[in-house]
Amino acid sequence: MRIGILGTGVVGQTIGTRLVQLGHDVKLGARSATSDKAAKWVSDAGTHASHGTFADAAAFGEIVFNCTGGMVSLDALKAAGADNLRGKTLVDVANPLDFSHGMPPTLSVCNTDSLGEQIQGAFPDAKVVKALNTMNAQVMVNPSLVPDDHDVFICGNDTEAKARVTELLRSFGWRSVINLGDISAARGMEMILPIWLRLMGALKTPTFNFHIAHS
Amino acid sequence: MRIGILGTGVVGQTIGTRLVQLGHDVKLGARSATSDKAAKWVSDAGTHASHGTFADAAAFGEIVFNCTGGMVSLDALKAAGADNLRGKTLVDVANPLDFSHGMPPTLSVCNTDSLGEQIQGAFPDAKVVKALNTMNAQVMVNPSLVPDDHDVFICGNDTEAKARVTELLRSFGWRSVINLGDISAARGMEMILPIWLRLMGALKTPTFNFHIAHS
Repeated sequence: MRIGILGTGVVGQTIGTRLVQLGHDVKLGARSATSDKAAKWVSDAGTHASHGTFADAAAFGEIVFNCTGGMVSLDALKAAGADNLRGKTLVDVANPLDFSHGMPPTLSVCNTDSLGEQIQGAFPDAKVVKALNTMNAQVMVNPSLVPDDHDVFICGNDTEAKARVTELLRSFGWRSVINLGDISAARGMEMILPIWLRLMGALKTPTFNFHIAHS
Repeated sequence: MRIGILGTGVVGQTIGTRLVQLGHDVKLGARSATSDKAAKWVSDAGTHASHGTFADAAAFGEIVFNCTGGMVSLDALKAAGADNLRGKTLVDVANPLDFSHGMPPTLSVCNTDSLGEQIQGAFPDAKVVKALNTMNAQVMVNPSLVPDDHDVFICGNDTEAKARVTELLRSFGWRSVINLGDISAARGMEMILPIWLRLMGALKTPTFNFHIAHS
């Protein structure tokens, strides 16, 4: 599959590398077509990797991942272009973490709204699926790093898009994908970040994940 | 031990009954000294159960549980009286769920503050420990209702108070108590409620709980 990834940070690079390893063609999108970070990633990731602008990556992908920082996601997606996202599955991995008031970060949107909903609202013709935002980047693409059972949450308004994302997640190694319903569940998925950050402090590792125990 | 419980709803009654079964003397506190609900609970719970006003219950308890609705907790605690809470461990089980705008509820405080912190701020001489707010009342007092490993979170500023609450939780059957640090972790513990509500919808049961998988 051709997959576009917006964002050249750890999350974008980690997901991109994993997708290339799984045999997909991946274009990493940055603000600039000549991003050194993206070029370095391409030279490491091999012949199925390429890079370009946000718009290039969005146009290239049959599926597009939003791996930009949550505070700049709407701008990055605007640069990617509504036309390039139309009809496509847009996997939103971002968290609206606001570091401008120091540590720990707060959420720039929460409770009565969410980044996932704002993105769906701004790009009504994209099929937004929130996923993977509740864990460390290494765990996202290699769930076996965390022992025992644990879960990835997804939500979104389009059933087929969620099925497509679920399939991709299973190819990453995910055995338990919990569908929380429509995109408004992004509120809960993003609001889990504050306890994730405290857990990282308590456990002294980012290599953990949530599991929902139930009968 | 003598334990005061503020609030006569399902959470207060369920915790109260369990504590009586474990051999403690429990006074359930209500807005009024003649609450029918509290009187009914006493007649069911046996000779170690009693009831009274919020102030009666707080004065009675060596440990006090706040099981009132989060929107009215500060008022209930004011009625309980700072003098009756001074120096005591105050276990805050409440969630600031605001149902006034319809379903699902939103949080009346979150992100940059929490109910746990507001209570600690208003009652600086009480030792507030946030605990048990992240699950169904039956699971709180009988964790074996949920199969496999799962966790209860606690936070608070006073190490000894957290140790005392941990001991009580172990007597309920809890094997994994995760200490998230000072009371500001109440933000994360309360902000987990929106995903809890979505999970209840997805799993079609309230009998589940979070487990943190890690090596």
